[in-house]
Amino acid sequence: MNPIFANIPTTIFEVMSGLARETGAVNLGQGFPDDPGPEDVRRKAADAVLNGYNQYPPMMGLPELRGAIAAHYKRWQGVDLDPTSEVMVTSGATEALAGAILALVEPGDEVVLFEPMYDAYLPLVRLAGGIPKFVTLQPPHFRLTEEALAKAFSPKTKAVLFNNPLNPTATIFSPEDLALLADFCRRYDAIVISDEVWEHVVFDGRRHQTVLGLPGMRDRSVKIGSAGKIFSLTGWKVGFVCAAPHLMKVLAKAHQFLTFTTAPNLQTAVAYGLGKDDGYFETMRRDFTRSRDRFTAGLKTLGFDVIPSQGTYFLNIDIAPLGETDDVAFCRRLVTDFGVAAIPVSAFYAEGAVKNVVRFCFAKKDETLDAGLERLAKVA
Amino acid sequence: MNPIFANIPTTIFEVMSGLARETGAVNLGQGFPDDPGPEDVRRKAADAVLNGYNQYPPMMGLPELRGAIAAHYKRWQGVDLDPTSEVMVTSGATEALAGAILALVEPGDEVVLFEPMYDAYLPLVRLAGGIPKFVTLQPPHFRLTEEALAKAFSPKTKAVLFNNPLNPTATIFSPEDLALLADFCRRYDAIVISDEVWEHVVFDGRRHQTVLGLPGMRDRSVKIGSAGKIFSLTGWKVGFVCAAPHLMKVLAKAHQFLTFTTAPNLQTAVAYGLGKDDGYFETMRRDFTRSRDRFTAGLKTLGFDVIPSQGTYFLNIDIAPLGETDDVAFCRRLVTDFGVAAIPVSAFYAEGAVKNVVRFCFAKKDETLDAGLERLAKVA
Ligand SMILES: CSCCC(=O)C(=O)O
Ligand SMILES: CSCCC(=O)C(=O)O
Repeated sequence: MNPIFANIPTTIFEVMSGLARETGAVNLGQGFPDDPGPEDVRRKAADAVLNGYNQYPPMMGLPELRGAIAAHYKRWQGVDLDPTSEVMVTSGATEALAGAILALVEPGDEVVLFEPMYDAYLPLVRLAGGIPKFVTLQPPHFRLTEEALAKAFSPKTKAVLFNNPLNPTATIFSPEDLALLADFCRRYDAIVISDEVWEHVVFDGRRHQTVLGLPGMRDRSVKIGSAGKIFSLTGWKVGFVCAAPHLMKVLAKAHQFLTFTTAPNLQTAVAYGLGKDDGYFETMRRDFTRSRDRFTAGLKTLGFDVIPSQGTYFLNIDIAPLGETDDVAFCRRLVTDFGVAAIPVSAFYAEGAVKNVVRFCFAKKDETLDAGLERLAKVA
Repeated sequence: MNPIFANIPTTIFEVMSGLARETGAVNLGQGFPDDPGPEDVRRKAADAVLNGYNQYPPMMGLPELRGAIAAHYKRWQGVDLDPTSEVMVTSGATEALAGAILALVEPGDEVVLFEPMYDAYLPLVRLAGGIPKFVTLQPPHFRLTEEALAKAFSPKTKAVLFNNPLNPTATIFSPEDLALLADFCRRYDAIVISDEVWEHVVFDGRRHQTVLGLPGMRDRSVKIGSAGKIFSLTGWKVGFVCAAPHLMKVLAKAHQFLTFTTAPNLQTAVAYGLGKDDGYFETMRRDFTRSRDRFTAGLKTLGFDVIPSQGTYFLNIDIAPLGETDDVAFCRRLVTDFGVAAIPVSAFYAEGAVKNVVRFCFAKKDETLDAGLERLAKVA
């Protein structure tokens, strides 16, 4: 069996959700809202599955959805995308990521990865035969630096795996960070695979900037998005990729043999959803901000050391002040003894793991957050 | 870019469906029924997306669906499967196939492939670094022979990619074929990755036998199924894998980083559908048989040389008697000049391609078939 897969553990998100299901713990681990998602979007999906077309849609996605994606980024980010050659629908952002890595990385190519990183990145780079080059981002700001990038990039760099807003740190890269990254990509003729699934989930007036809009990056960017995260419907597994035609041609070939296509009724509903006006997204952000603030205040009252969250569904706490030195052991105790599932942030590191940070998902109803806080009160 | 993907063409199924969409041709190419699929199953999906849970389901699939899959094979094939360790839900059979190949095949491993073969198999084997060993099956019966298998298997054989019922030949392997295959797998300690997506679509009283039920094969079989094909809902992209726990452990790791999971509302509906009694499947088969017979009779009346179909949505014609020597050119003319999309069977061959066979999908309403025949009348 392929040792890349034989030797990796089950993803921490599933492990923790599994434990939460078994033990009845309050699940603040895996990133999903307990809001049911917008009713009108779900109604569209219901109507389409009942009265619409349920056979293979076009491999690249329904034209209406590809068009809606292009229109969304035109309106929101001022980026022009040709829906017929630069937009592809995938079965979730995970498939988009796997396809991009498998399509673009050849054995021996170097791939720059930023730690902390989502746990799928490294195994997929290894599967493609890529050689990972790590840049460890430093708290509290997790900035890119000229020095760190200079160490990681080389003439062999094929691609950079970038995630902005960044999970699990809940930080957003600054315009200076993005300019530096773009500069290195241009200098080393590298492609950026940019996981921007949290693009709409940013707080306190912050604004997401896609790599597609950075100077000189239009032809070397693969932007990955997630309708699940945009619409709080994480189970739908409708993702998408935007990239210049010469890249998309190869990405499409990976897609055709990884999943081929995605349920048309969900595509129809997402196309409809992307037509929503800014008000919808503002309301979503306001609601998540409220949840973030409620949970942050609750944790602080209990004496936890909360690290501020700028975006994503997540915030982190520093467990060092509690005398804890092992985030995994702490999270195991948290779920089994205290009934709260969380994510140990060391799962996002391949090397030199940080062991004192624990991530919580606050994208929950007040009752859920309060139930979590009640249980956490016994820990602090 | 990865040359495996950079150098392959767009899958013939998409090319032909794309041409059909553009030209308004009658689409008898890609395998999908134009029946809307069972209304009660679609209603379940609609209800679940509107009123049910739309966040991440368990990575391995909803317990109710895993249980329904196990119960289905127990009842139908007498195979005992533990739903918690031997069944996994995937985003279509394509993902199941990609995951199985990427998880089980290591660079340098030999993989036995039978030609004609589905066009995803070979690029996925190459992507995994596997070395393909081809067995070319011979018309009209496409049987396995001791001699051919002896040439293809070696101590380096890691896996065999098997498809039964076989697309595009529309044939079903005999008990003797299956016994021979099992014998070679045991002798060479090889795993069979068995694409059985057409298992329920068999005609004239034939009965599908899964590899899982063959003597000594329980621990070396990866069985792949497709709810899309079982329920005539090809767009849903709900597939599944059944395999012994030691294999499933590794398959699950590939799945977690290829798509992670599949829309829960569609899973709920498929779980419900699998509870249907034999009558449902009998009716489905009877309807497809009627379509097959209608289309076969029509083609024969027009003078086409029809090769009998034992299963799948497909039948083939021999175009040599028409003086045609290039199935691809013939299919291009068929779609552009005559308005009928079909599939050139050479797309299913890597080497020594057969150039005189063309595949039609007959899983269509009478009007569609008759419209196709009317246009084909001008060709014959
Ligand atoms: C695919 S499960 C992971 C969901 C997520 O983005 C997270 O919890 O970080
Ligand atoms: C994924 S499109 C191919 C559908 C099919 O099984 C066929 O037409 O052979």
